[in-house]
Amino acid sequence: MPVSKTNPGWFFEDYSIGQVIEHAVPRTVTSGERALYHALYPARHALYSSDAFAQSCGLAASPIDDLAAFHVVFGKTVPDVSLNARANLGYAEGRWLKPVWPGDTLRSSSEVIGLKQNSNGKTGVVYVRTRGTNQHGETVLDYVRWVMVKKNDLDRPAPETVVPDLATAVEPADLVIPEGLDFSSYDFTLAGEPHRLGDYQIGEVIDHVDGVTVEEAEHMMATRLWQNTSKVHFDGTQREDGKRIVYGGHVISMARALSFNGLANAQMIVALNAGAHANPTFSGTTIRAWSEVLDTAETDRPGVGAIRLRLVATSEAGRAGELKDESGKYLPHVLLDLDYWALMPV
Amino acid sequence: MPVSKTNPGWFFEDYSIGQVIEHAVPRTVTSGERALYHALYPARHALYSSDAFAQSCGLAASPIDDLAAFHVVFGKTVPDVSLNARANLGYAEGRWLKPVWPGDTLRSSSEVIGLKQNSNGKTGVVYVRTRGTNQHGETVLDYVRWVMVKKNDLDRPAPETVVPDLATAVEPADLVIPEGLDFSSYDFTLAGEPHRLGDYQIGEVIDHVDGVTVEEAEHMMATRLWQNTSKVHFDGTQREDGKRIVYGGHVISMARALSFNGLANAQMIVALNAGAHANPTFSGTTIRAWSEVLDTAETDRPGVGAIRLRLVATSEAGRAGELKDESGKYLPHVLLDLDYWALMPV
Amino acid sequence: MPVSKTNPGWFFEDYSIGQVIEHAVPRTVTSGERALYHALYPARHALYSSDAFAQSCGLAASPIDDLAAFHVVFGKTVPDVSLNARANLGYAEGRWLKPVWPGDTLRSSSEVIGLKQNSNGKTGVVYVRTRGTNQHGETVLDYVRWVMVKKNDLDRPAPETVVPDLATAVEPADLVIPEGLDFSSYDFTLAGEPHRLGDYQIGEVIDHVDGVTVEEAEHMMATRLWQNTSKVHFDGTQREDGKRIVYGGHVISMARALSFNGLANAQMIVALNAGAHANPTFSGTTIRAWSEVLDTAETDRPGVGAIRLRLVATSEAGRAGELKDESGKYLPHVLLDLDYWALMPV
Repeated sequence: MPVSKTNPGWFFEDYSIGQVIEHAVPRTVTSGERALYHALYPARHALYSSDAFAQSCGLAASPIDDLAAFHVVFGKTVPDVSLNARANLGYAEGRWLKPVWPGDTLRSSSEVIGLKQNSNGKTGVVYVRTRGTNQHGETVLDYVRWVMVKKNDLDRPAPETVVPDLATAVEPADLVIPEGLDFSSYDFTLAGEPHRLGDYQIGEVIDHVDGVTVEEAEHMMATRLWQNTSKVHFDGTQREDGKRIVYGGHVISMARALSFNGLANAQMIVALNAGAHANPTFSGTTIRAWSEVLDTAETDRPGVGAIRLRLVATSEAGRAGELKDESGKYLPHVLLDLDYWALMPV
Repeated sequence: MPVSKTNPGWFFEDYSIGQVIEHAVPRTVTSGERALYHALYPARHALYSSDAFAQSCGLAASPIDDLAAFHVVFGKTVPDVSLNARANLGYAEGRWLKPVWPGDTLRSSSEVIGLKQNSNGKTGVVYVRTRGTNQHGETVLDYVRWVMVKKNDLDRPAPETVVPDLATAVEPADLVIPEGLDFSSYDFTLAGEPHRLGDYQIGEVIDHVDGVTVEEAEHMMATRLWQNTSKVHFDGTQREDGKRIVYGGHVISMARALSFNGLANAQMIVALNAGAHANPTFSGTTIRAWSEVLDTAETDRPGVGAIRLRLVATSEAGRAGELKDESGKYLPHVLLDLDYWALMPV
Repeated sequence: MPVSKTNPGWFFEDYSIGQVIEHAVPRTVTSGERALYHALYPARHALYSSDAFAQSCGLAASPIDDLAAFHVVFGKTVPDVSLNARANLGYAEGRWLKPVWPGDTLRSSSEVIGLKQNSNGKTGVVYVRTRGTNQHGETVLDYVRWVMVKKNDLDRPAPETVVPDLATAVEPADLVIPEGLDFSSYDFTLAGEPHRLGDYQIGEVIDHVDGVTVEEAEHMMATRLWQNTSKVHFDGTQREDGKRIVYGGHVISMARALSFNGLANAQMIVALNAGAHANPTFSGTTIRAWSEVLDTAETDRPGVGAIRLRLVATSEAGRAGELKDESGKYLPHVLLDLDYWALMPV
């Protein structure tokens, strides 16, 4: 009798602290992925839209969109990290370290840095630090993610609890700015808005106004492109209504693209401080977004500042600024609460 | 209190004659855009499908589809010209001046050339001449468009009425043929049909027979790819039935692609004489097309002739040639009435 | 009165033995087509996903997916072979002879090798050998296909019956292995599974477990990308429920991509032995797949073996191994029964 050939995914008892998982299926990303990204999201940040604009900012060409790079790196981890996940609990300490260029080949590996069995004995939380590398062996992106994973063999003893000490946010001094980036001749007209870093105030809330209604074909195409294999995104027989749960990263990209209207100059994401997929998203939902300015910082590059933003995706219009109820629970219309740093001309 | 960061769009009173608007977000177009164009429309014109065929016609390679170039240039104008438009009224004097090659970066600017406040005092017509340029500063395309735009401040006095004197059609002598184009060794077998310019008669009506049923995911992907930000195409909450209005350019491209069947040798669009989006299109509609030969002309290039065509998109089969009712109003099944010049082997 | 300009397709009486049809519209395939292929199918075979992985296997870069090449070549034949087809009856003797690289331009021609009028006198079976060639004139792929085609002029006498003698399967000795292919340093971790040729037993059945629910927008985008013009895939007015029949090749690609889970190392398809589209597929169907190992073989290349597989697509879960009823008829949940050879590390 041959052994089963298919991958059942990993269960909580399969992980141990310090374990490094090399994720399968490296991926070459090209201008084809870029075109699809711009067909799937209303992405308009000029640096990711135009080689000429990127060159005027000191880069060799327009890189692959920051979040597309994230999704490619993330997608590879799904078969090993979250195929049996009950929930994607959080992100921390994410940093973009090198631009990804068309033609680059990305791969991912993850180190298990935390384990905590839940008191019910049926699930546990796994913390991994995932690293995306290019064909030169350079790390282009790393971040910590934690997920709740099912236990398969309930008789296996709980591992020693290790909960990593994670930063609330990446420190401005730790942000990595792409080599050569220079906003001193930044063209605000071509970028689409006149607002520079100094025009934003900490605490300011921006309603991004626009909405996009999500279709099944779109979120599945996106999620497949990132080679994310999670069944719930593709298999309509898993729910009575035939709907599939939209990949959380699709909501991130949609909200980020919508945030152009008000944050057109928040050009490049360089850090992911935290993130929560507050409620599941289904096709037919009209996604909207609002942002809150959390912090600003200087960098040592000409004309380049950093802005720390909370990006919130919602399923209802006109509720910018409304996030949680009195008990601290996310309001039902909140889909995503993301905390990131982006680079903006000063 | 910070100023609002989002773009409310322009209102009728914001325009003045002679004003030049530099539109935001330049865009590099690649083979990725081409592949998407061919996935979204049944595009089969050989010159835009095959580098080898284009080279046999004297070009360096297969250019980006003529209408894809148009949509990219057009899309940039939406935030500044038609975000508050009530209707897209017409096109005139459009010319393709240079092929767009994969890797080119396009930008757009528009000059206000006409203004006419409507008698109700609440709207007005704005005429702009839009120019698309590449990274070398060469104009690749220009055209006149006029739209009906809302007035926001009704107390502002009406501007002096200026209605530009627009040509009914581009004169054959003014058509710009791509450098090097030569149809003297044109391969009719590979192109898909034997009909040359001499086989078409003025007044001839061609029913293109085929139909394509439109899906929400498709027209939204197309419209996003052109970075067109008009809300009605994406936000399903704007209508009770959840449907979005299909971008008129999507209908143009669909009809043009369908016209391959009967006009396979009308290879390159070089002029847009006029156009009307006769009725709105929604998902679920099966788009069909018919053409009428309006004129033919010679050019000074080897083997290259020009054919002037009326291209009509409809939502019903078997009605080739039926356009308007007795009062001159478009019939309800007519979606598009487009008048253009294309290049065809003589 | 001008002659009709549109293509009515070919009818049974239009074919004669030995006739060679040069199909129209050559096509340059690029990284854009590759990205779309990976958005439309959950394709994860590493050799078609990563330039670096393909290079580690001795190739210059990652080729265009084997089935994408097939669909491009196949699509061109539709206007001349199957526009008036009642059924796509079978495939035989298919071989991939050269990898297709991004930038290659493909064209197709078909030779009529068999004709058999049906006893009803209204239809007949046409056998063609189709050849796909690149811009260097090299054949990249050839295969035999037979279809049942309508007769238009019922008074025309039946042609002499010629039924070609077709091999049940391509002999292992006739498989063409891409130049330079070498699996001796094959990275099983990056490829996604540890199973090598020796781990598979003839007769072994693999349930690929995962399912993908098909959307109209997706199968139409795929089918258009291959420039397949068959009306039933696009025109929702042809059936009362508005559904379109999914192109059989879409089901092939979906099933092949799903087979990654259990056959991740069946990297490259090199022969198509047989195939039947057992039942039509419609949007809303959740496609699943199972495979049966039919044979294995050695090749003369380092580390490279061949595996012959039956790939079955179904519309129901948990029925791996169930194919036909007692009368030899395909079970209603079976969509596809495909027999192919793939290359796998030994």
